[in-house]
Amino acid sequence: MTTGYQQRATRILQRINELASISEEPAVITRTFGTDAFVKGSHLVAQWMQAAGLATRIDNIGNVRGRLVSSSANAKTLVIASHIDTVVNAGKFDGPLGVLIGLDLIEQLIQQQVSLPFHLELIAFCDEEGCRFHTTYLGSKVIAGQFDTDLLNKQDAAGNTLQQVIGSMGGDPGLLQQDAIPAEEWLGYFEIHIEQGPVLYEKNIPVGLVTAIAGQKRIAITFTGEAGHAGTVPMTKRNDALCAAAAFILEVERFAGTHPHQLLATVGTVQIAHAASNVIPGEVTITLDLRHADAAILASCHKQLQQLGLSVCERRTIKMSWQAVQETEGVSCDDTFNQLLEEAIQRSGYELVKLVSGAGHDAVAVAAVAPVAMLFVRCFKGISHNPSENVELNDLAAAVEVSAAFIHSLIQKYNRG
Amino acid sequence: MTTGYQQRATRILQRINELASISEEPAVITRTFGTDAFVKGSHLVAQWMQAAGLATRIDNIGNVRGRLVSSSANAKTLVIASHIDTVVNAGKFDGPLGVLIGLDLIEQLIQQQVSLPFHLELIAFCDEEGCRFHTTYLGSKVIAGQFDTDLLNKQDAAGNTLQQVIGSMGGDPGLLQQDAIPAEEWLGYFEIHIEQGPVLYEKNIPVGLVTAIAGQKRIAITFTGEAGHAGTVPMTKRNDALCAAAAFILEVERFAGTHPHQLLATVGTVQIAHAASNVIPGEVTITLDLRHADAAILASCHKQLQQLGLSVCERRTIKMSWQAVQETEGVSCDDTFNQLLEEAIQRSGYELVKLVSGAGHDAVAVAAVAPVAMLFVRCFKGISHNPSENVELNDLAAAVEVSAAFIHSLIQKYNRG
Repeated sequence: MTTGYQQRATRILQRINELASISEEPAVITRTFGTDAFVKGSHLVAQWMQAAGLATRIDNIGNVRGRLVSSSANAKTLVIASHIDTVVNAGKFDGPLGVLIGLDLIEQLIQQQVSLPFHLELIAFCDEEGCRFHTTYLGSKVIAGQFDTDLLNKQDAAGNTLQQVIGSMGGDPGLLQQDAIPAEEWLGYFEIHIEQGPVLYEKNIPVGLVTAIAGQKRIAITFTGEAGHAGTVPMTKRNDALCAAAAFILEVERFAGTHPHQLLATVGTVQIAHAASNVIPGEVTITLDLRHADAAILASCHKQLQQLGLSVCERRTIKMSWQAVQETEGVSCDDTFNQLLEEAIQRSGYELVKLVSGAGHDAVAVAAVAPVAMLFVRCFKGISHNPSENVELNDLAAAVEVSAAFIHSLIQKYNRG
Repeated sequence: MTTGYQQRATRILQRINELASISEEPAVITRTFGTDAFVKGSHLVAQWMQAAGLATRIDNIGNVRGRLVSSSANAKTLVIASHIDTVVNAGKFDGPLGVLIGLDLIEQLIQQQVSLPFHLELIAFCDEEGCRFHTTYLGSKVIAGQFDTDLLNKQDAAGNTLQQVIGSMGGDPGLLQQDAIPAEEWLGYFEIHIEQGPVLYEKNIPVGLVTAIAGQKRIAITFTGEAGHAGTVPMTKRNDALCAAAAFILEVERFAGTHPHQLLATVGTVQIAHAASNVIPGEVTITLDLRHADAAILASCHKQLQQLGLSVCERRTIKMSWQAVQETEGVSCDDTFNQLLEEAIQRSGYELVKLVSGAGHDAVAVAAVAPVAMLFVRCFKGISHNPSENVELNDLAAAVEVSAAFIHSLIQKYNRG
């Protein structure tokens, strides 16, 4: 790696730190959609884009958008983007890393006076985390023309509607549709993001190619047995709903752990109705989170796990209710883009690691209208959504190097074409 | 059974119903210690005792006490008792059944002008359930001279101290010690109570002999693994604390279910720190309730279960913290009393069923100073602490028949002695 990438990484990190200093609360990083801190952060990013020479605006939902226009006839648009909203008590890289590497890439193209065969648009999405309105991808859904206007009446915890919050930032909720990039104008979408998982960290590789973003199902499962006094009901007469739930939790672990296709399955919550230390649990509700990139495999695993649950309950004379409460379809990254990104990684001298993202990203929303590509960057121990989230400067530099190579190969490809 | 017992049972049931109509809330039965409804209920019971011809008083803690004095020299005291406080939304038999059968037994002795070789004292204990101050046996501990005066500063949910509540009922907290029956004056203690478990119901037997009240240990166990994103951490890289807890819950079930000596083991609560459906649980705390009549067996099982927990955690690289939070020693009922009660059951024509009570009772407190005996009465499906708690009239009559036979055999024994 040349020292040039290190210097660029240092500058990117300075910007990441400056953005991280803008927070709803001192000492931690919290910039949820539409808050004063969020607006202040957006304006900083807009200033940077403006200073770089991009035609910059904040659109109606609150995305910061900087455009570098191609002089080619019939040029389409390549979007480089990630988000700048955060969870509560966040790390500083989740989102801003992708936006600020993107800014650096475009600054370089401008400096080098590269002739672009496509328009470039850098977007800092306003709401990927969905903390305030319990939604996801508000910003990228607008860009993709996939925004559901019913959401405008959704309220945050304080009772403010999304419509009101958009208005408070100076946006016009009635103009959201006009902010979409029409399907026929898309060349594609590229997002750089921290992995938020341990694979690159454990393989000791700075960046990885994302081949797909996993589809997700969330299921609420209630086990109903019979509550009873912990001191009076003999072990042989019990219908303990918690024991059934425990047996199922272990079945889930075994099933996913031995599944040949990297299924992820997690029981994250357990609620015992009228729980007390001296009462045999009569009703227990758990949530099951299932993720897989392949919709058919996900559906099949879902079915098999439901069957395993039924078997556990049948053996124990327990009733099971199985309710799917959320479903997100998986997204495959574009083969052509992946090929170019793979070459960029290998040309830069890094081992190729292909990853399926289990976490959702804005690319999911955009994939409805455009080919997408994603580059993951190693983060410390895979820790994210946490102040101890960290990316090494060298890895940041590697991400710049690979991304620059990828963009250049795209430019070459479309200049030829 | 003669129709006499049926008639007596009918009258007892009328009184149980009348007492049950006194409640803190309409439509349900709630009479926790020291409330207006509790005081009103106590006065009703006191009136009944008075009307039966007993020297009646309400002592300083709030126990209703009616005394029938023997003319024998050096007579000791046989106490017949149970409690009249209730849990929130209680059944009507848990407690009052024993007090009102006791009242009937003494009324009969008075009517029959039986010459008593011992004093009889009927006590309606004021606080067995411990709902208000999270204590147990306040009333019976006073009677047994075992009351811990530190408890007087304990506060209820509204911030009232026990001392204040005693004062509000007209009691003098400074005189509690004087309400004890001195150890040398006890002949013994007899309590009739619903089983609160399914054994008699399933064996289709109206009454059972309680040979012991189980000792109890309550343990809080925390499993610490590593929290993580449900979508990014591969199954092979997880340290899921909930899976470890689930494995332990099944080990507990298996261990107790196959234990040759009727160990009861219950995991009643599960708390996941920072639980969310998309987060791998990093820390899980459960409570384990262990009960057995034999202290040595209980201690040994406790040790073995801790070892099983450690094994589970070692296999999974999970940390386990094991903290005993409560311990009550088991109590054995008196052999001589048991022999007489056994004969009374069999003479009355019922199959003898010997039970260990897994639930605690006032007899536990009294056993510190006097021999105790207990008769269990079948309740519908073993359901208790619930409005659907029920005792059939015939079973109530059987309990009267057996208890009367037992008291008569005691009278004979001490008249001879």
